[in-house]
Amino acid sequence: MDYKQSGVDIDAGNEVVRRIKGLARATFTPGVLSEIGSFGGLFRLGDRAQGDPVLVASADGVGTKLRVAFLSGIHGTIGADLVNHCVNDILVQGAQPLFFLDYLATGRLDPGVAVQVVDGLARACRENGCALLGGETAEMPGFYADGEYDVAGFIVGAVDRERLIDGRGIAPGDALIGLPSSGLHTNGYSLARAIVFERLTLGVHDRVPELGMTVAEALLAPHRSYLPVVRPLLATPHRIVKGMAHITGGGITDNLPRVLPRGTDAIVRLGSWEPPPLFRWLERAGAVPREDMLRTFNMGLGLILAVASTDADEAIGALRAAGEPGARVVGTIASAAEGHAPAVRYEA
Amino acid sequence: MDYKQSGVDIDAGNEVVRRIKGLARATFTPGVLSEIGSFGGLFRLGDRAQGDPVLVASADGVGTKLRVAFLSGIHGTIGADLVNHCVNDILVQGAQPLFFLDYLATGRLDPGVAVQVVDGLARACRENGCALLGGETAEMPGFYADGEYDVAGFIVGAVDRERLIDGRGIAPGDALIGLPSSGLHTNGYSLARAIVFERLTLGVHDRVPELGMTVAEALLAPHRSYLPVVRPLLATPHRIVKGMAHITGGGITDNLPRVLPRGTDAIVRLGSWEPPPLFRWLERAGAVPREDMLRTFNMGLGLILAVASTDADEAIGALRAAGEPGARVVGTIASAAEGHAPAVRYEA
Repeated sequence: MDYKQSGVDIDAGNEVVRRIKGLARATFTPGVLSEIGSFGGLFRLGDRAQGDPVLVASADGVGTKLRVAFLSGIHGTIGADLVNHCVNDILVQGAQPLFFLDYLATGRLDPGVAVQVVDGLARACRENGCALLGGETAEMPGFYADGEYDVAGFIVGAVDRERLIDGRGIAPGDALIGLPSSGLHTNGYSLARAIVFERLTLGVHDRVPELGMTVAEALLAPHRSYLPVVRPLLATPHRIVKGMAHITGGGITDNLPRVLPRGTDAIVRLGSWEPPPLFRWLERAGAVPREDMLRTFNMGLGLILAVASTDADEAIGALRAAGEPGARVVGTIASAAEGHAPAVRYEA
Repeated sequence: MDYKQSGVDIDAGNEVVRRIKGLARATFTPGVLSEIGSFGGLFRLGDRAQGDPVLVASADGVGTKLRVAFLSGIHGTIGADLVNHCVNDILVQGAQPLFFLDYLATGRLDPGVAVQVVDGLARACRENGCALLGGETAEMPGFYADGEYDVAGFIVGAVDRERLIDGRGIAPGDALIGLPSSGLHTNGYSLARAIVFERLTLGVHDRVPELGMTVAEALLAPHRSYLPVVRPLLATPHRIVKGMAHITGGGITDNLPRVLPRGTDAIVRLGSWEPPPLFRWLERAGAVPREDMLRTFNMGLGLILAVASTDADEAIGALRAAGEPGARVVGTIASAAEGHAPAVRYEA
């Protein structure tokens, strides 16, 4: 017996690695010292080692949004979903990305699909000024169905400790500013798929009149990165952003409280923004209780910032100037009993 | 419909996250600023920002060794496999680990299994002085068979640029020192499983007389970390280690050349160490050509160091003093034609 008979094709793997190397090399920023293929990826901190540097790291997957990619055969947008999700997860603590690594696992490697996925990762890395420093491509016969794969991403960014954003200063009276999402982002897909494919028995290429697009177009809209529009706020002379929440799995209900200090609640005014048609369509078609919608989907807000009420106009102005016309106040911070875990209270 | 009906149980996930938090907290080193549960994990560089710091990062999986864990119901050693694999991958460039993150994906979350896996990760992190800084636990209905999962790891370490090890100084006449592996580590499992389970039709709990242990014991022996025995060599006044190769997928044949400069070959003397019984048993039972054995398994050497021949005795002495009695010279560096890609030549 040899290795190929046992289901692993080292040569196909090497060919993919060779193509991936070229894609990754195009993302390299001045800090990168290594070639892909050395055991570890090397990133020289340089000027970022000045002051009191804090590394901020996050690991994430794409979840069952992958299933929509499999059904539609579109694998080029998954990379943006993964990279942008990771970028946002460290952005909320004030960090700018340094580098990203991926883990791509398949049953039997389809070089074309692997390259499409990594090409998407590389493009998103470049757009965020983040090096694709390395990764692992694993061929695991029998673990994944034919044509299926899983992909995880790991990001490392840096922020000076002075500029770390941790929500500690959030206080009653502060304003909550919401930024529009670009779709479901990467959360709620198990429920969305159940509604669309099982309850409505739609196909991935079917057109949805309420949305003016196909199921695939609606469900594969890439998770956006908030780095370009939030970056200017990270460098203001005074620390204008007190806290930020990335609205991922668990929705506004579970994510916003993660950055609130004890003794506060968030009041979110549901009338202050209109959930995009996709959310309203899913809610109606699935007869999903509003409470579940708010704890599952982002409902049209992908990032929420907390700022002093006196800074709200300046923050919104800066966000709009950076290309975010939809930035708006969506709520406020209220005081709550000391012992009580922070929560979101929704108002009409 | 709600989220739980669609196959995702947020409350079970939250319960696992709560238990994982406690395990991770026990690994926290003084650099860690964050609690698990904030969007990103925070690691303050502190003194490590002095000089010219280079971050070294790697992503890895466990491969189909996981299948043996599934068959045997033993999930507590997978964590050591993953963490130690990652630790070795950055150690070969001279880096000491700072922090680790994991990605654990299942079809339907079994809290007991998830906690066993993460407990293993946390123990291995502690043993390597590495913080388990965060991770992602993904429940993906339909992606993984019942009772199955995949797990990936991501490590970041640091080394001063002055002490970076990259093989550049390796020259003809240098000695190659091999360190014993603790078993198959995490590579070659698709072939090993085909031989053991398909060709020999053994069960995971069957005893193998040639090995004096069960199949599960032989195949689940954890991947060892070389950090404790190599660490003293990273701090010697002169840079004694010129290059190191972690012998992973592709064996000595594919991994040793990764650190060799152009114009050199490695001569590895097969008679200089004895492959442990597990490798000899697999070779015989599978009628595997020797060439495939050497390109698939580590054959009993998990790490190979290149040092000047005049430093070989000092290096071996230091390795033995650090608890590595099996360290020995296994080969040498030879010159090769300039244009030729570095390769391994085996001698008897």
